[in-house]
Amino acid sequence: MHTSFEEIRDGFQALRFDGTALGLIDQRLLPAEERWLRLTDIDGVITAIADLVVRGAPAIGVAAAYGAVIAARSRGNDLAGWQRDMQRLAQARPTAVNLVWAVERMRAVVSESGCLEPERLAAEALAIHRADIAANLAMARAGSEWIEPGSGVLTHCNTGSLATGGIGTALGIVIEGVRAGRVERVYADETRPWLQGSRLTAWELARAGVDFQVIVEGAAAALMASGAVQWVITGADRIAANGDVANKIGTYALAVLARYHGVQMMVAAPSSTLDPAMASGQGIAIEQRDSAEIWRAAGLEAQPPGFAAWNPVFDLTPAELVDCIVTERGVFRPPYDFSQF
Amino acid sequence: MHTSFEEIRDGFQALRFDGTALGLIDQRLLPAEERWLRLTDIDGVITAIADLVVRGAPAIGVAAAYGAVIAARSRGNDLAGWQRDMQRLAQARPTAVNLVWAVERMRAVVSESGCLEPERLAAEALAIHRADIAANLAMARAGSEWIEPGSGVLTHCNTGSLATGGIGTALGIVIEGVRAGRVERVYADETRPWLQGSRLTAWELARAGVDFQVIVEGAAAALMASGAVQWVITGADRIAANGDVANKIGTYALAVLARYHGVQMMVAAPSSTLDPAMASGQGIAIEQRDSAEIWRAAGLEAQPPGFAAWNPVFDLTPAELVDCIVTERGVFRPPYDFSQF
Repeated sequence: MHTSFEEIRDGFQALRFDGTALGLIDQRLLPAEERWLRLTDIDGVITAIADLVVRGAPAIGVAAAYGAVIAARSRGNDLAGWQRDMQRLAQARPTAVNLVWAVERMRAVVSESGCLEPERLAAEALAIHRADIAANLAMARAGSEWIEPGSGVLTHCNTGSLATGGIGTALGIVIEGVRAGRVERVYADETRPWLQGSRLTAWELARAGVDFQVIVEGAAAALMASGAVQWVITGADRIAANGDVANKIGTYALAVLARYHGVQMMVAAPSSTLDPAMASGQGIAIEQRDSAEIWRAAGLEAQPPGFAAWNPVFDLTPAELVDCIVTERGVFRPPYDFSQF
Repeated sequence: MHTSFEEIRDGFQALRFDGTALGLIDQRLLPAEERWLRLTDIDGVITAIADLVVRGAPAIGVAAAYGAVIAARSRGNDLAGWQRDMQRLAQARPTAVNLVWAVERMRAVVSESGCLEPERLAAEALAIHRADIAANLAMARAGSEWIEPGSGVLTHCNTGSLATGGIGTALGIVIEGVRAGRVERVYADETRPWLQGSRLTAWELARAGVDFQVIVEGAAAALMASGAVQWVITGADRIAANGDVANKIGTYALAVLARYHGVQMMVAAPSSTLDPAMASGQGIAIEQRDSAEIWRAAGLEAQPPGFAAWNPVFDLTPAELVDCIVTERGVFRPPYDFSQF
């Protein structure tokens, strides 16, 4: 058993499982170094998730599923020990919805039979991974068809194979759009403060053979004014029932700038990102991060006296600024209503 | 003779002249280290300007004027040698208008008398410096009066005492607004790719005792949506006859976001920045810089294969997005007409 999926058309996977070990590319070292970790015990998987070796909600879910298989192989018949492993695994990151969801799916397999069967667990993990790959491909095809041939696109953060089990969400659409001959110009925000764009998205695009240009966020408006961009395409961390989108800080700015310049805004996310119970984005709490992410970039080793930062991780884009939302179940147009989803 | 000006109300000057030596704070090392250079020969002044020890068009002009005095003292009666010094000084930076303008003013003093008189040249340099200080103060007072008490302001790049001979242009208005009790919240863009905001503006604000928060450019829209900001206040590198503004990349994005959120946009610059001969901003060429400024921030020591960047230094803000333009000659409101200025 080996997760080599023909469906992964870009030839790259950040997650590989050979039946015994989970292979993960260490995203903390990218793009300076491409180092693979080979994880053969559950503690290694938990640490990798907690320490951001692997990031992106769908990718974390897939890694956790393979972790459950690895734990079962080493626990033998010790079901209680495996359950304790699952408890720790589910808590490796505090807010990743897909992590808990994947662990619950693996637990359900064990609940059904009442015993640890590594092969059945491996089949379930593969199914989770395959479903994510399929969802990515469905989004890539559906989303890219909306892009007029000859278009330029601007994306934000990292939403590719480093963040998912497959080709990615928004970045999958961008890459598929290039392959289909619809996208002629690709731009990526560097995405301060974590630089996912210049570190991860640039690395993925280069690897996929796609020409691209990275910009600082401050240049997005001038780029749009130049006429080079027809679509902004981003992922989403959470989508409310009314279509409001919570995503990486900077997404809302792009949506406002896009509307002003007559550029269209596409949001791509698996349907697991939809939150039918959340009526609007106003209910979504936005996490504030430490100011060190700002002053460290200024070359400082300690916080200078008086230095403070306003450093939210996410922002909220109102549904009226989003021209379409792409999930594996299709492309949705306003007015959005995901309350029955 | 010593340039200690009572008019500099914030108690800080990045440029000091004691009659013999020019003191410059080395801006390349800020904020990690506060090191002063004491320059006593013209080569030192030229190198300091070329190597960005001092930056900001008005500050460069003042430094060049003092450089002409230093050159005159060492040349004695060698007028031809001094003229060669001035030739090299004027070429220390390729595009700084104030640099050439200051050198021409010093040459005019010599042309009048036909000989090198260091004391007359020193008086002219002091006059240039005093005029810049006075222009800064006039802008600070005039601009801050437009700000409603209780306001929040967002500024971009560095436009303070590190960029001018005095309190600054846009940052002078911000600091004066805080002192006058009109500005209650101060935000500064970190200003990628050079980080003038998190490196220089943050350092100046802390030194002036002003509370502030730095944001990444991507957070400006979310900040405006929160209601914390009523004015965006920036400087300008060049202002066309119709009021179009060329300024640091990211300024145009702020202007679009401000208009969308009902936030007002103020541009502050000395009248020497006005270009009556330039009908509109469309005629202003925008310099593109090297992609290394982008990939170096991603932790790379060499350009990765395939990595490219679109990296303009400036952008163009159309006059219709600018609510007022503040110069030392007053506050102007649209429709702008600087063609007879």
